[in-house]
Amino acid sequence: MTALSPGATIGILGGGQLGRMLAMAAAQLGFRSHIYCPDAKFPADQVTDLVTRASYDDEDSLDWFAGEVDVVTYEFENIPVETVGRLAQKVDVFPDARVLEVSQDRLQEKAFINALGIATAPYAGVGTANEALEALKNIGYPAVLKTRRFGYDGKGQAIVRSEDEVPAAFDSLGSDKIIVEGFVDFDMEISVIVARGRSGEVKAFQPAENIHTNHILDVSICPARIGQDLREEAVELAEKIVTELNYVGVLAVELFVSADEPRLRVNEIAPRVHNSGHWSIEACPTSQFEQHIRAICGLPLGDTRLYGQAVMKNLIGDEILDLEHLLADPEANVHHYGKLEARPGRKMGHVTRLYPLDKKLDI
Amino acid sequence: MTALSPGATIGILGGGQLGRMLAMAAAQLGFRSHIYCPDAKFPADQVTDLVTRASYDDEDSLDWFAGEVDVVTYEFENIPVETVGRLAQKVDVFPDARVLEVSQDRLQEKAFINALGIATAPYAGVGTANEALEALKNIGYPAVLKTRRFGYDGKGQAIVRSEDEVPAAFDSLGSDKIIVEGFVDFDMEISVIVARGRSGEVKAFQPAENIHTNHILDVSICPARIGQDLREEAVELAEKIVTELNYVGVLAVELFVSADEPRLRVNEIAPRVHNSGHWSIEACPTSQFEQHIRAICGLPLGDTRLYGQAVMKNLIGDEILDLEHLLADPEANVHHYGKLEARPGRKMGHVTRLYPLDKKLDI
Repeated sequence: MTALSPGATIGILGGGQLGRMLAMAAAQLGFRSHIYCPDAKFPADQVTDLVTRASYDDEDSLDWFAGEVDVVTYEFENIPVETVGRLAQKVDVFPDARVLEVSQDRLQEKAFINALGIATAPYAGVGTANEALEALKNIGYPAVLKTRRFGYDGKGQAIVRSEDEVPAAFDSLGSDKIIVEGFVDFDMEISVIVARGRSGEVKAFQPAENIHTNHILDVSICPARIGQDLREEAVELAEKIVTELNYVGVLAVELFVSADEPRLRVNEIAPRVHNSGHWSIEACPTSQFEQHIRAICGLPLGDTRLYGQAVMKNLIGDEILDLEHLLADPEANVHHYGKLEARPGRKMGHVTRLYPLDKKLDI
Repeated sequence: MTALSPGATIGILGGGQLGRMLAMAAAQLGFRSHIYCPDAKFPADQVTDLVTRASYDDEDSLDWFAGEVDVVTYEFENIPVETVGRLAQKVDVFPDARVLEVSQDRLQEKAFINALGIATAPYAGVGTANEALEALKNIGYPAVLKTRRFGYDGKGQAIVRSEDEVPAAFDSLGSDKIIVEGFVDFDMEISVIVARGRSGEVKAFQPAENIHTNHILDVSICPARIGQDLREEAVELAEKIVTELNYVGVLAVELFVSADEPRLRVNEIAPRVHNSGHWSIEACPTSQFEQHIRAICGLPLGDTRLYGQAVMKNLIGDEILDLEHLLADPEANVHHYGKLEARPGRKMGHVTRLYPLDKKLDI
């Protein structure tokens, strides 16, 4: 499989900020981006001249799109597997449909991770409230019930603190494909952004420490403030996951860090560039976005060393209104996603600040 | 005059790589770019969804364009002054038509620089070969005859080493608006990229050292390897120029550095972002492109400190064919302008490498 050359067109399913930043990274390398998105307006349509507005089950549009692009990727994992499967009959799609299938189903995902000898939270797949109650006898309380598919940013989840709460929690999710997950007593959440190229080459970024507010990522700090042994172990786990999946592209591995063994447990994997890797735009020679483009185009992966310690702050909802101060802050690298309406909980932009690697942060 | 907010649209006259990189910088801050360019295809049309293909004297198109954008700027100084004047009746244009007029005419430009008490090469405006011969009695040989307007990359120039060569050289330029310039015995060419905001705030980048090959910029090194006193003096000259012009935007000042006094002479100014400032994308918190967008939108100027020593190498013509090796070089930040045909002398992309500030370069 030969590498794509500049001038080639990358098809991107999904037109949010991740698609937008992928398209901008592609442009720096001379590639064109063709965004496929069902919405009338979306952040990525402002940064390329090639856009298809159609639904993910519009077979005619998909077939036409496949003929217009040289490779396809996606910016979010809730793309229907059938969409990717149909495109893959005509054009290379990275990451492939199998990866997408595993990552769309929390149950399959955890089983896959455990099969690699990597720890997760204790879990069980259940179809009824009674099965949940039965599973919780082993898993213990508190625990969380989640829909197996299509959850993000805390949606599709219900916490249960005792047996009494289980039936209502189960019913609130409106699905019979549920996973019960035990709580992990963790000290920190971290993530590793890792890439695997078409040739099998693997390169990870340093692990980032992630701070959530209201179930949405608020701040990422890279490198995560844990011991070097744990950082190396986290990177090794992430490298093992992409290698075992025969993965092509950038993948994010979210992990819990605990004081007790197993000190690292995988929370979830995302087969795409990830909010917790945005600092790589300024902090590394190659950003996660350029790395993903390099990987899916068959180019050598880029260097991932850190120029400095990075702190990425998401600008959620009204936080974007502070833009004037941020633009006046000489430390702030400001990114605005071009969304005009600052709805609560909506990711509007982010700011990255770089500091010397040995500086002790006051966060 | 209030600052523009993200979501506003910046009109850019010209669709080459400078327009392309301006549009990409605008997108990072959440601004949209509308490119006005007469060509059928051009590098900047790949990175925005707003494009007008029309000639610079198409009044209907200009009037319509003025209504579609919130501010206008340009990526090259050979835009007709009339175009800018017509647009300026309906929308803010930065830099303004007066600046454009001065910088389009080598004679006006040098007179303006000298009037600020800043040295240039000795020069005279001439209309005939005989006037050129007369002026050269004072200026001396060798010297160079240049068309007063619309020269770039060594085009519209003829060197004269003796009186005999003057008539033919004059005729070869095909114009009666000629400037005779004496040779400056310089050790180095440098440039200062400087910005002035709408509020009058001025910020310069560190001077860069420029190495030309075949009259085209080949390599820029920042900071220029000259004494700190000279670097500071060069920055002061540049700051004086933008202040005196009431300039808004980024301006490039090219200077000759000599061993003898005056040690700095201005070669020319360019009212736009400049090839010799491309290293700022990686080497500084704010790139020259973002700085220009900030300036014309009325935002505070960004920080221009250097993260490291930067070496920018242009990829001219066939040099772009080495892309595979460049992408495998962990030091190389590769930029490809999306041009498919690598004609000789054509700027196809550039590569920037960062080194520690105290590293002695082998260039």
